[in-house]
Amino acid sequence: MLLSQLIGERYREKPVEASMASHIFMLRGGYMRQVASGIYSLLPPAKRITAKLEAIIREEMDAIGGQEVLFPVVMPAELWRESGRYESVGSELLRLKDRTGHDMLLGMTHEEASVHLARSEATSYTRFPFMIYQIQTKFRDEPRSRGGLIRVREFTMKDAYSFHTSQEDLARYYDICHKSYERIFARVGLPGIVSVKSDTGMMGGKVAHEFMLLSDSGEDSLVICPHCGFSANVEASPVKCVHGNRPSRPVEKVSTPHTKTIDELCALLKITPDRTAKACVFAVEGRRKPIIVFIRGDFEVNEAKLRQRVGADVFPLTDYSESDICFGFIGPVGLASDADVYFDATLEGETDMVCGANETDFHLCGVDFTAEGLGNAFPAEFFDLAKARSGDACPVCGRSAEIKRGIEMGNIFQLGTKYSASMGYTYTDAEGKAQTPIMGCYGIGVGRLLAGICEEHHDDYGPIWPISVAPWQIHICAIGGGKDPKITEAAEKLYAELSRKYEVIYDDRGAAAGVSFADADLLGVPLRIVIGRGLSKDGTVEIAARDKSFRDNIPLEDAVSAVDGYIDRLWEGLR
Amino acid sequence: MLLSQLIGERYREKPVEASMASHIFMLRGGYMRQVASGIYSLLPPAKRITAKLEAIIREEMDAIGGQEVLFPVVMPAELWRESGRYESVGSELLRLKDRTGHDMLLGMTHEEASVHLARSEATSYTRFPFMIYQIQTKFRDEPRSRGGLIRVREFTMKDAYSFHTSQEDLARYYDICHKSYERIFARVGLPGIVSVKSDTGMMGGKVAHEFMLLSDSGEDSLVICPHCGFSANVEASPVKCVHGNRPSRPVEKVSTPHTKTIDELCALLKITPDRTAKACVFAVEGRRKPIIVFIRGDFEVNEAKLRQRVGADVFPLTDYSESDICFGFIGPVGLASDADVYFDATLEGETDMVCGANETDFHLCGVDFTAEGLGNAFPAEFFDLAKARSGDACPVCGRSAEIKRGIEMGNIFQLGTKYSASMGYTYTDAEGKAQTPIMGCYGIGVGRLLAGICEEHHDDYGPIWPISVAPWQIHICAIGGGKDPKITEAAEKLYAELSRKYEVIYDDRGAAAGVSFADADLLGVPLRIVIGRGLSKDGTVEIAARDKSFRDNIPLEDAVSAVDGYIDRLWEGLR
Repeated sequence: MLLSQLIGERYREKPVEASMASHIFMLRGGYMRQVASGIYSLLPPAKRITAKLEAIIREEMDAIGGQEVLFPVVMPAELWRESGRYESVGSELLRLKDRTGHDMLLGMTHEEASVHLARSEATSYTRFPFMIYQIQTKFRDEPRSRGGLIRVREFTMKDAYSFHTSQEDLARYYDICHKSYERIFARVGLPGIVSVKSDTGMMGGKVAHEFMLLSDSGEDSLVICPHCGFSANVEASPVKCVHGNRPSRPVEKVSTPHTKTIDELCALLKITPDRTAKACVFAVEGRRKPIIVFIRGDFEVNEAKLRQRVGADVFPLTDYSESDICFGFIGPVGLASDADVYFDATLEGETDMVCGANETDFHLCGVDFTAEGLGNAFPAEFFDLAKARSGDACPVCGRSAEIKRGIEMGNIFQLGTKYSASMGYTYTDAEGKAQTPIMGCYGIGVGRLLAGICEEHHDDYGPIWPISVAPWQIHICAIGGGKDPKITEAAEKLYAELSRKYEVIYDDRGAAAGVSFADADLLGVPLRIVIGRGLSKDGTVEIAARDKSFRDNIPLEDAVSAVDGYIDRLWEGLR
Repeated sequence: MLLSQLIGERYREKPVEASMASHIFMLRGGYMRQVASGIYSLLPPAKRITAKLEAIIREEMDAIGGQEVLFPVVMPAELWRESGRYESVGSELLRLKDRTGHDMLLGMTHEEASVHLARSEATSYTRFPFMIYQIQTKFRDEPRSRGGLIRVREFTMKDAYSFHTSQEDLARYYDICHKSYERIFARVGLPGIVSVKSDTGMMGGKVAHEFMLLSDSGEDSLVICPHCGFSANVEASPVKCVHGNRPSRPVEKVSTPHTKTIDELCALLKITPDRTAKACVFAVEGRRKPIIVFIRGDFEVNEAKLRQRVGADVFPLTDYSESDICFGFIGPVGLASDADVYFDATLEGETDMVCGANETDFHLCGVDFTAEGLGNAFPAEFFDLAKARSGDACPVCGRSAEIKRGIEMGNIFQLGTKYSASMGYTYTDAEGKAQTPIMGCYGIGVGRLLAGICEEHHDDYGPIWPISVAPWQIHICAIGGGKDPKITEAAEKLYAELSRKYEVIYDDRGAAAGVSFADADLLGVPLRIVIGRGLSKDGTVEIAARDKSFRDNIPLEDAVSAVDGYIDRLWEGLR
């Protein structure tokens, strides 16, 4: 490819709308352009990279017995009504009507389509297990698209669905997929990705993992224990806390004027927040009844855990005008409200606590969250609803765990029978009895993977693409060719020869060195050959790695044969 | 691939909903399943074929300098408002709203998206010409989907867009694309496809060609001249007719009771339909004024030509209740209606004709469609609006042309500046002046190509895939392996050895010969190796072509080495 013909302007200015490195470089390097919020066109360099990502993913899916299919982007609502998700999924599911007024939707995931296909094609146990996958455009009407390709509305995704006759077989195949994902991430240059236990969310099922690229710009929070290796999304990480173990004392109602917040309360009573029980109030769309969660004052509620517990989407209640709640002074004793009340496990067994008295400007002191302590306000059960904090005890080994930020690059779910059962998919077992298949599903976002690789592999000047996914393997810069025809001649010959074996981009523009190198940095091609002053001086060309791991001057006549060795070095660890 | 593991049931019964061979075999062979009207899931055999089609298309697009990009499926209405198509295209354009109520649409073609991209990336004449293309899912809300993958609502398409600084350069590149398409169709096994001149329709522009697979089941009608080679879609083929050249005679009003049709009129007056001028009435959605086309009684109006002439979608008027038209007796003389009136060229210069008198049960005889004949009813111009008929004069050589049916496999358009001008795309020419780029666009539907290949290459038992696109190259059938372990052993060894070099599907089910062969016929793999009775009899296996061009018995030990030669034979004409 001649750089003079490549479609896509490159520029030096940081785009105002971008803060993440991948977003900045994808725009500056001419990889993508926004068409609408969260919707992009990909230009040739990005398309070349995603083609390689897709080829690697396809190879690894085929290697674990995957069979590639293609489901529709536009699906009839009936399919999603069968599973119940047409109603249960929020407005991120884009619903529309076709010309006849029929309810349709844009696929954001394809569990329903996979069951629709499988239930007519695999009806005997002899067909099991099997896995089908596709690489296809999806649409998720994100309220907040951000970070370029990190969180978009339209995206290309590999989604795979496996079907099994037993939970054991699913677990066995789930591990195979887990290893397959590790291979995929290693091959594309992200061997450091960690797999963390995750919330199954709207997908359903019990066991799930996310593959996380650790990055300060990530929007997910992960609990990672440096001692025992435990890792989980905060949404799925149980919280262990150290209890106060204070002796009980009689309950006492105290006047606490103007103390609507925990900070104000603690300042007045000269106590620390872990001595308090606070009430967090949530609402469910379409339900009048609020949800009150009592939690220790030094913790916050994890909405994902609460959502899972309640079985519906929850959001913090902001308008109290229509409720009978005594805002700022809510407490578990004598709570008149008809709210659904949950108690977080951080409170379980805590004694001598301060909580609201359900009366403006009053709190109760000396409340025990024990079987005896709360009288008939005592909860039937405490639930794990708190958000893990850095330094909290690891739920496995109990030592101090850390909170890190991550970008989700893929996810795998043990779905169980949620979709097969609701959609009436059965097969006949060896005894002739109807059974419901057990499913797993496995996703990787291709565009997000592209962005993630850029997040992990870049310097101040542009991406540094691993050679396994680079848009081209070799970038030839001819510097000063305008003045010295020998340079152009050598560059063209090298371009022709290397193109027989490699993907080469050749900067044939006769641009100044600064311009040529800046563009090469933005295209991030792993091996660069510079033909310029060295040629007239001593007949050499410069062969350098974009990642600066080597830079050599090689006689022009040895360049072609030398390239093989350099390319091999760049492939180390990626095969 | 083991056939026992392949997802997709095959069956013998003809599906009731299908009449075209490709539709029947794609369903019977487990290639696809319907999800909704005109929306299908593709199973592994079809996905394997489309992957090969896409690879061939991609190679040929790259070979003519194409750069692959990816445009969005979901686009904001603004883009199509800029070109005017958001309003002008009918309900086949699926319009929808996102969660914020913003008007969006599903891309059925991407001229707007290509201009949106190009206008920020190529603003200097030095960038031209260039061509960008994508292979992407599209959605067209067809009112009548039919024929399986022939006419669907959701489909995968290769669409390419070229940009030029002169009409000459566009014409030059258009020819290059035409040749590229010929290569693509030859490589996928459809060398007989004819390119015909076509109507540019809603795409705009002046010159366009369709690549047509001749087939009795096609829904397009083509004018093909066996004498001079002229070919065109009937929608774009000018009609030449032989005129009566009768002497003029005085106009006379005659009573013609109960003659609302041309047949009734001719029977009464004992004349042939070419002696009559009939009126065809059309309506435009949203316009009160009807359109009346006068045309010779032995011809029909071609709605595509009329649409092009009127500049809007037209449909036959069926409800006359609100018009002042004298239905059944409409004539050009004394027509009181305020309709838009067009005269077809078949009437130009015709003399002594019969036409309606605009009075119920009366016609005029002796009407001349000449400058003098019609008085002030004489039209300013005659237009070519008639539908060509088999045997009509070829518009080029004048000899008798034929009408054939065809299936459109691809199309190319010289768009001109329709999109670049309306969307305000300019570049700076060598003199520093702003100029509007001239565009071409070039499409091939991948799924329809798959179906077309099946239409052209099948027998009564299934598809006969050309080896260039076949889902596998070799199909091994082991017959009687259940009784003779030597057969299974030989088959497995052959499968392992051939899989190193070829894509092989191995029927390992131990099925009866009838079942095994019927399935092999449905999968249509070009080379079949049968290991069965011959092995025990004389140590041979049968190597046969699916297209029956050869069938040999080969000693087992020679089979692997013999395969290369057979495969080469199957590739003849496809490289």
